[in-house]
Amino acid sequence: MTQAGESDWLDAVKWDADGLVPAIAQDHQTGRILMMAWMNREALALTAAEGRAIYWSRSRGKLWRKGESSGHVQNLHEMRLDCDADVIVLQVEQLGGIACHTGRESCFYRSYKDGGWHTVDAVLKDPSEIY
Amino acid sequence: MTQAGESDWLDAVKWDADGLVPAIAQDHQTGRILMMAWMNREALALTAAEGRAIYWSRSRGKLWRKGESSGHVQNLHEMRLDCDADVIVLQVEQLGGIACHTGRESCFYRSYKDGGWHTVDAVLKDPSEIY
Repeated sequence: MTQAGESDWLDAVKWDADGLVPAIAQDHQTGRILMMAWMNREALALTAAEGRAIYWSRSRGKLWRKGESSGHVQNLHEMRLDCDADVIVLQVEQLGGIACHTGRESCFYRSYKDGGWHTVDAVLKDPSEIY
Repeated sequence: MTQAGESDWLDAVKWDADGLVPAIAQDHQTGRILMMAWMNREALALTAAEGRAIYWSRSRGKLWRKGESSGHVQNLHEMRLDCDADVIVLQVEQLGGIACHTGRESCFYRSYKDGGWHTVDAVLKDPSEIY
């Protein structure tokens, strides 16, 4: 197999103008949506190769091996691509049970009600103990 | 309450350079991730007001009342915002059980395996019968 053939699946992804694609991480057992981050081509290739979620940090402008400082690694169970080939879903096992930098299971801890966003999920671990 | 106060929750969202935010639709019962689309401020306000998913179609450059031509409306059960305030999750009831324009339940019907994306979900309804 040629090198080109091996990267066909990466070419199939419709990268945006910045060379990125959104990646949604979902708990593979509970179905809880944990977070959404971004991947560039290298991050996606490494995620598949290493079997763990590796993102591209837009704020830091570098690869973000999820869990590298917190230990909250996301082990990959399945990876899917959508019909437009511009969004990825990762089924993951969230080590430590915490995906969010606020110390919560999920980054989606604010719920809309009566014209406002309300925090409805508990902090499981003090963020200062994570980082 | 002033008009400004009523839109505080919209101001809390970090809109991107195009004035958009990604919105992930998830089946409120099964947890299946159905699709990801985009919302502008008006789409988000209308989604809350009407209790159904209304997106901004980037390709058509106009509001997209999900289900307007297919009947596959997404009734809103809950709406959440993430820690960075730049991604939204919608818990929805997917009418007709089909979110994807290909006639599948979910847009995420391709799974990664051995260096390729493989279609693993069945078409439930011929797209030509939907649109």
